[in-house]
Amino acid sequence: MVNFADRMSRIKASDIRELLKLTAQPHIISFAGGLPAPELFPVADIKAAMDAVLNEQGQVALQYGQTEGWAPLRKQIAERMAAKNAIHTDPDNIILTAGSQQGLDFCGKLFLNPGDVVVLESPSYLGAINALNAYQPNFVEVPTDDNGMIMEELDKILSTTENVKLIYVIPDFQNPSGRTWPLERRKQFMEIIKKHGIPAIEDNPYGDLRFKGEYQPALKSLDTEGLIIYMGTFSKILAPGFRVGWTCASEEIVGKLNLIAQGAVLQTSTITAMVISKYLEMFDVDKHVEKIREVYKHRCQLMIQTMKETFPPEAKFTDPDGGLFTWVELPPHVNTRDLAAKALEKGVAFVPGDGFYPSGETKCCMRLNYSCMPDERIVEGIKRLAEVIKEAL
Amino acid sequence: MVNFADRMSRIKASDIRELLKLTAQPHIISFAGGLPAPELFPVADIKAAMDAVLNEQGQVALQYGQTEGWAPLRKQIAERMAAKNAIHTDPDNIILTAGSQQGLDFCGKLFLNPGDVVVLESPSYLGAINALNAYQPNFVEVPTDDNGMIMEELDKILSTTENVKLIYVIPDFQNPSGRTWPLERRKQFMEIIKKHGIPAIEDNPYGDLRFKGEYQPALKSLDTEGLIIYMGTFSKILAPGFRVGWTCASEEIVGKLNLIAQGAVLQTSTITAMVISKYLEMFDVDKHVEKIREVYKHRCQLMIQTMKETFPPEAKFTDPDGGLFTWVELPPHVNTRDLAAKALEKGVAFVPGDGFYPSGETKCCMRLNYSCMPDERIVEGIKRLAEVIKEAL
Repeated sequence: MVNFADRMSRIKASDIRELLKLTAQPHIISFAGGLPAPELFPVADIKAAMDAVLNEQGQVALQYGQTEGWAPLRKQIAERMAAKNAIHTDPDNIILTAGSQQGLDFCGKLFLNPGDVVVLESPSYLGAINALNAYQPNFVEVPTDDNGMIMEELDKILSTTENVKLIYVIPDFQNPSGRTWPLERRKQFMEIIKKHGIPAIEDNPYGDLRFKGEYQPALKSLDTEGLIIYMGTFSKILAPGFRVGWTCASEEIVGKLNLIAQGAVLQTSTITAMVISKYLEMFDVDKHVEKIREVYKHRCQLMIQTMKETFPPEAKFTDPDGGLFTWVELPPHVNTRDLAAKALEKGVAFVPGDGFYPSGETKCCMRLNYSCMPDERIVEGIKRLAEVIKEAL
Repeated sequence: MVNFADRMSRIKASDIRELLKLTAQPHIISFAGGLPAPELFPVADIKAAMDAVLNEQGQVALQYGQTEGWAPLRKQIAERMAAKNAIHTDPDNIILTAGSQQGLDFCGKLFLNPGDVVVLESPSYLGAINALNAYQPNFVEVPTDDNGMIMEELDKILSTTENVKLIYVIPDFQNPSGRTWPLERRKQFMEIIKKHGIPAIEDNPYGDLRFKGEYQPALKSLDTEGLIIYMGTFSKILAPGFRVGWTCASEEIVGKLNLIAQGAVLQTSTITAMVISKYLEMFDVDKHVEKIREVYKHRCQLMIQTMKETFPPEAKFTDPDGGLFTWVELPPHVNTRDLAAKALEKGVAFVPGDGFYPSGETKCCMRLNYSCMPDERIVEGIKRLAEVIKEAL
């Protein structure tokens, strides 16, 4: 028996992981996970980019590189953020990370003493809660409505809570709720964090995947104080298997994230960053993203339409403008963890909602992913799920 | 001005990093860094493996995968550890990490509360000190001689020090000293840690790179109690640009490392692990390692011979049996940080030794890397360094 650190008492095996293992079985219709549609991966183009990298700069690609990551890719990211998100930044304000997940871990390390407070949307991304949890913070949840975080509640919390070190938000097609903040809320948010001087992570993995409604500017594009730590990733617009994401922040913060990265991993992979850089140079990624959007739009609408036709009226669900998820709220007496077990018996998987609340107290919700199942399985899966829900009511 | 976590006061910008940036200039003869020889990278073979992966399993390679890493590669690693290191383990006792560096970070997270004690060789690997330092331990250094850690001193320290949570050692061709522990010390070490019940990281990035002397068994192969956390990497036998390493430990420890990895990065890259797995399947990595060994043996002997011919007698240095480094000790009044600045003026770079001591108090040593410079630059660089040393004496 060896002794572990105190933080390990908070880091527990997730029963969702066991559930996700079951969903790997081919007969299961899985609305769990958040996998991009693999049939859309541009495998041939990526192969062409890889071959070009190894032909032209093989020794560089296989060698150690800089902690902050492959400079040409950081430049391309800066250009893309300017074009797509109106974020104007120097490439040196960007550090590559292993997916944006690693940026979350590094931010926990950078900001959090045990007992410090992290403020986030209720519900929020399970993986962010897990990443930050290792640094032993207290989480304070801000109530949300159909337009995302309620800003009056945020202001109240920041005015009355001590030791708030970090805010974590997903303003676009939030995971898990699928909700998007309108412009007015974004402006209010920026005013409020400026007033309180609290840095905020803007996690934006899905921003490019808008398939209806109006474009909303990134918080980072409204940031005059260097308080926004913006995270992006190639996982949802290209391929998650590379594990290439990035964090863009003020010089001071990026400098410290670099030091953290050096100790934690030395650097991210040279070759994967170079392959993505070469892909962006050789091919039109926007055309590729357009294809993804069309498919996800169709699948989302099919899922929502089938839910409207088959779910009982007690089930409320969001109708997202983009991203990967819709969020279902059932009456409070329904425990979706029990429901998940029953659904699995009928060959359908989803993620129960309680993991998306740090408190774990709200047990009547579920997250449904529509991005990686074909039409007929979406329809069949939702129908079966409707039956399970009706039985539970 | 935002507020950072307390740990950040310990995580400082390294002036060695500035030095390493300068060494990127082509006219500099660099004995700094620990880069493998890039001309030995099997670029064509790796390209063939990559093409095979994308042709055969492109969608899998680009998708999310398991946190513990690509199962076929973990199986190949288990088989290779059995064949090369007499370590017999189940593949499920292995987790893939981004280089072994990430395993160090995860172990810091797993074991260390602020103020806990980490025991290590004096000197020890700078990068391990940096990785663990983020978890705010106290470091206790065990004196070493030409045969590595002095076991009587280790036993004394473990008997008289409270809150020792972790030991960190590199028994083969240590970084920075190039020293290797003989069998007797290894046996003593295992007895001592068993007696005290303290887990130990055996970091073995260089084990395959023995070019003279007798093979010594891995500590892990002598471990009857599950106390050894063994770390390996493909960085030195294949290519560091992939960032693929692994940690092998008891079921309990690997299970917890998996939970940590899930929060910190979700998983390492699917595609890089699959490419290495395919490379091991398609090609004879041992033949490739044999080539590396020959080149490093030659370069090491050339460096040592030139040092014998040109260094003043006050300079003591190790004659390694493998790995990448030799270690030079000068009289205590010489400050090698000043020496590094003077050497750089003459176009030669090395890493001053103080960073390899957590206390930073020993300032008269330097680490020299021989793996990535061609013959004529090794000879010329050592000659110039000899002049700088003589001036300083």
